[in-house]
Amino acid sequence: MIGEIPGVTSGQMFPNRRSLHDAGVHRPLQAGICGTSRTGAESIVVSGGYKDDEDHGTVIVYTGHGGRDPQSEKQIADQSLADPGNAALVTSYLEGLPVRVIRGAQSQSPNAPSAGYRYDGLYSVTSFGSRMGNDGFRVWQFRLEALVLTDQSSAPYSENLPLQPEGAPIQRRLVTTQRVVRNTGFARQVKTWHRDQCQVCDTRLIVPGGTYSEAAHIQALGAPHHGPDIVGNILCLCPNCHVLFDSGAIYLRDDFVVMAGNSEIGPLRLDPRHHIRLAFVQNHRARWRY
Amino acid sequence: MIGEIPGVTSGQMFPNRRSLHDAGVHRPLQAGICGTSRTGAESIVVSGGYKDDEDHGTVIVYTGHGGRDPQSEKQIADQSLADPGNAALVTSYLEGLPVRVIRGAQSQSPNAPSAGYRYDGLYSVTSFGSRMGNDGFRVWQFRLEALVLTDQSSAPYSENLPLQPEGAPIQRRLVTTQRVVRNTGFARQVKTWHRDQCQVCDTRLIVPGGTYSEAAHIQALGAPHHGPDIVGNILCLCPNCHVLFDSGAIYLRDDFVVMAGNSEIGPLRLDPRHHIRLAFVQNHRARWRY
Repeated sequence: MIGEIPGVTSGQMFPNRRSLHDAGVHRPLQAGICGTSRTGAESIVVSGGYKDDEDHGTVIVYTGHGGRDPQSEKQIADQSLADPGNAALVTSYLEGLPVRVIRGAQSQSPNAPSAGYRYDGLYSVTSFGSRMGNDGFRVWQFRLEALVLTDQSSAPYSENLPLQPEGAPIQRRLVTTQRVVRNTGFARQVKTWHRDQCQVCDTRLIVPGGTYSEAAHIQALGAPHHGPDIVGNILCLCPNCHVLFDSGAIYLRDDFVVMAGNSEIGPLRLDPRHHIRLAFVQNHRARWRY
Repeated sequence: MIGEIPGVTSGQMFPNRRSLHDAGVHRPLQAGICGTSRTGAESIVVSGGYKDDEDHGTVIVYTGHGGRDPQSEKQIADQSLADPGNAALVTSYLEGLPVRVIRGAQSQSPNAPSAGYRYDGLYSVTSFGSRMGNDGFRVWQFRLEALVLTDQSSAPYSENLPLQPEGAPIQRRLVTTQRVVRNTGFARQVKTWHRDQCQVCDTRLIVPGGTYSEAAHIQALGAPHHGPDIVGNILCLCPNCHVLFDSGAIYLRDDFVVMAGNSEIGPLRLDPRHHIRLAFVQNHRARWRY
């Protein structure tokens, strides 16, 4: 279950890991990361287990799993992206999936609860990378940012960034995002059928942990377009073709030929399992006056 | 000025358009859209001037400018993306720029203030397109979504979406975004130097109103990477190469040859005005263990 758990609200307290498990907020009783490479990370527990963690409130630097001696709690080997928990966080990054964050009292952070565990809402993984950890071994680190702020006055960037040598100070309060992509179960199905290969230009981007594509809704979701979230209304595209399709630079004819203005680009690659509905193709064209 | 105005908070009231102008919240005294194709839209006033507008609170469907008879207030001609206000909103969409939203009492919406104008914070343009308006002429419409929610219980999708014929109901509460891109003045400078042409693969995406590229910070901003926002730390990339670069699938050697694993992809296209600093290139490599 990715996203909010019905009936559980941000700020809700839990006495122990068992109660987090029972509520479905964080299912493992020991592991800090719940999830797999295929599904993405459902939830993480921030409880100060790793020296390299940083907790700035709306921004968290979370150290991946592995390489730690259970006795001394020291890092004794490099971490790997092959670790299922770490691979789950990479998928969350690539697919823009939200991760439930739980803070435990063991953490030294001023943001930690005084006892037990607190569910702190959804975060997004906005970057990741590896570095030498404090104990001299390689660790993977994931930057998570709060997806929903409960108080407009709270800054997404509460951390202190180093002063930049050129020009004006960085604007810290604002997260701007480009290209909002709706990720749904149907989007995942279409991307799986096409094995992340763009239906327009055949590009398949190879990234750590697998391949990457985006689901484009043909008739866009939500007002004013009111397209439905069904497989017949979704294309599997590379990010470049997605930009072109969503801004009307390319569109489809009724015979599924990709057009740019009056020029034929070529046929859309089809898959027999994936029935694209003409009504949505026609709606997309009408949106761009073609 | 894009983004928040220092000292002005969401919910703040203004008696009239002159006071909005004086505070810098919305500078034109008559026009509903402030901005240009080059800068994006700074602000819009939602005041019920167009019959085709929809105001769902955290989601707004905003009708573009033009084609209206000033006497009858009826649509008497098609709207155009060449209109500066409409073109500004397209730029805001393409570049992920935040737009200040002001609601006026003239609007019929239950979200409107009872008198004067209210600044309602930052919104993001998440899609756009044209359709036949209620008066029989073509109008352009922009979907805006609240960037910061003041109350976690308020749903980003408060509108009623049509029931989908296949599968489970759409999850309405969650906005997921892929690929958070930091847009700064320095990013704009680098993209201008390269005229939106990807420094890795030479792609230049042509979209309505111009061309599109993304600014990639070499040493990522924010914890744990702490890269600065300066031109020497930014590349101009197409979205595809941006995904590859940010996930470590491609990286740069010290001689600015683009590498994928141990394979040479080719030289990075350089511009004499754009001095890329080696320290950031080395930091990016170290992040991916190269």
